[in-house]
Amino acid sequence: MTRNHQAEKESVAQGGNYMHGLAIDAVIFGFHDHQLKVLLMQYKKTGLFTLPGGFIYKKENLNDAAQRVVSERTGLENIYLEQFYVFGDYGRSDPKPMKAIMTANGIAHDDSHWLLQRFVSIGYYALVDFTKVIPMPDIIFDGCDWYDLPGIPQLMQDHNSIVKKALTALRNDLDNKLIAFNLMPEEFTLGDLQILYETILDKKLLRPAFQRKILSLGILERIAKKWTGGAHKAPYLYRFSKPL
Amino acid sequence: MTRNHQAEKESVAQGGNYMHGLAIDAVIFGFHDHQLKVLLMQYKKTGLFTLPGGFIYKKENLNDAAQRVVSERTGLENIYLEQFYVFGDYGRSDPKPMKAIMTANGIAHDDSHWLLQRFVSIGYYALVDFTKVIPMPDIIFDGCDWYDLPGIPQLMQDHNSIVKKALTALRNDLDNKLIAFNLMPEEFTLGDLQILYETILDKKLLRPAFQRKILSLGILERIAKKWTGGAHKAPYLYRFSKPL
Repeated sequence: MTRNHQAEKESVAQGGNYMHGLAIDAVIFGFHDHQLKVLLMQYKKTGLFTLPGGFIYKKENLNDAAQRVVSERTGLENIYLEQFYVFGDYGRSDPKPMKAIMTANGIAHDDSHWLLQRFVSIGYYALVDFTKVIPMPDIIFDGCDWYDLPGIPQLMQDHNSIVKKALTALRNDLDNKLIAFNLMPEEFTLGDLQILYETILDKKLLRPAFQRKILSLGILERIAKKWTGGAHKAPYLYRFSKPL
Repeated sequence: MTRNHQAEKESVAQGGNYMHGLAIDAVIFGFHDHQLKVLLMQYKKTGLFTLPGGFIYKKENLNDAAQRVVSERTGLENIYLEQFYVFGDYGRSDPKPMKAIMTANGIAHDDSHWLLQRFVSIGYYALVDFTKVIPMPDIIFDGCDWYDLPGIPQLMQDHNSIVKKALTALRNDLDNKLIAFNLMPEEFTLGDLQILYETILDKKLLRPAFQRKILSLGILERIAKKWTGGAHKAPYLYRFSKPL
């Protein structure tokens, strides 16, 4: 454990640097091998699964805190993030799993500990390029990994319902905003892009209509044919011609 | 000042019953005389304008708190509410206007008073039937009134930008959800409904296409011709055939 990590652990345990009662939970979506995936953490010793999350420093902008939290888990910068819902039911904060985690990790606490109080959690979803992410656990987690969205494990607290709500928000946003591109690698075929849309929306799309709509947006640049070992009908590769 | 009002004033001043650092701001939209309107409060003595807002009791669900806050200002129940954004920049909390208000109202305070700390504010918009609202100020406000949205006065803190963001969210939601109806009285003509859509979207719509789209939703019930004093082309009145 490095000195910085130890200091961070103590800082979180004491809570003096953070706003109390308020947390961020991040649903980090990635896409790979025709699968929509979510990045999940697993706590050491207890084995409990959770969404990546964190707290807001007393003088930190909320959206900056969300960037920091997702950056720490993915190694990326300038991440596409959307606030999608605030989870604020009184009954959502069950202190039991957090008590077990603190006990297992040797963090002194009684019932008045700030981590055991009620938290209102601001839900963000993040769209990232799977191929660029290096999942990073921290000192109280021993797992930070991608899980296929259908069939993710049971998560702590209300985190499964947070994932569900994030997916609904992503689907609604998909039609109104050009955001799906944040999930793609730098170069891709129109077929790749169509599979992404079909996976998120969970339905088949007609190829000619999809391609016409996407190309009409004027944001794709055709760069080269994909090398497929000599096939006549090799598809073209595209990339985005504008910064996102 | 009734005893309950005095107790409420003391409760807010002391803050012991509320979550600290977290507030609700409500953009309450109404529609009347071809105008989209917003309900605003004006503080006694200082004259400062503000959005209706409030705090969350320690054991209260967040969405229930928002219902309560909007209900207290409008006299309505079961109000259509949408969370639309969380305003969490560090710099948004300027304690000066609140200090002036507390001084003017004889509320003892020093710089550590809970109302003078940083607040993260959860923005809700509400859609209400203008004809049913009885705007109600409380003991520290002497004004609670409707203002036409174009040209509302300068509001405290970042509240003008909260209104702007709420309008953007309402426009985006209008296409995806059947929500505009919450702004209408019980009976209305298709012409009334079209004017509402045109006002929110700030653009003209083609009458045949609009009527076809709305009627195809199957949620309107035609009830009678509007009485217009004998004109041949009196329009029909409609109401909603389903609970919203």
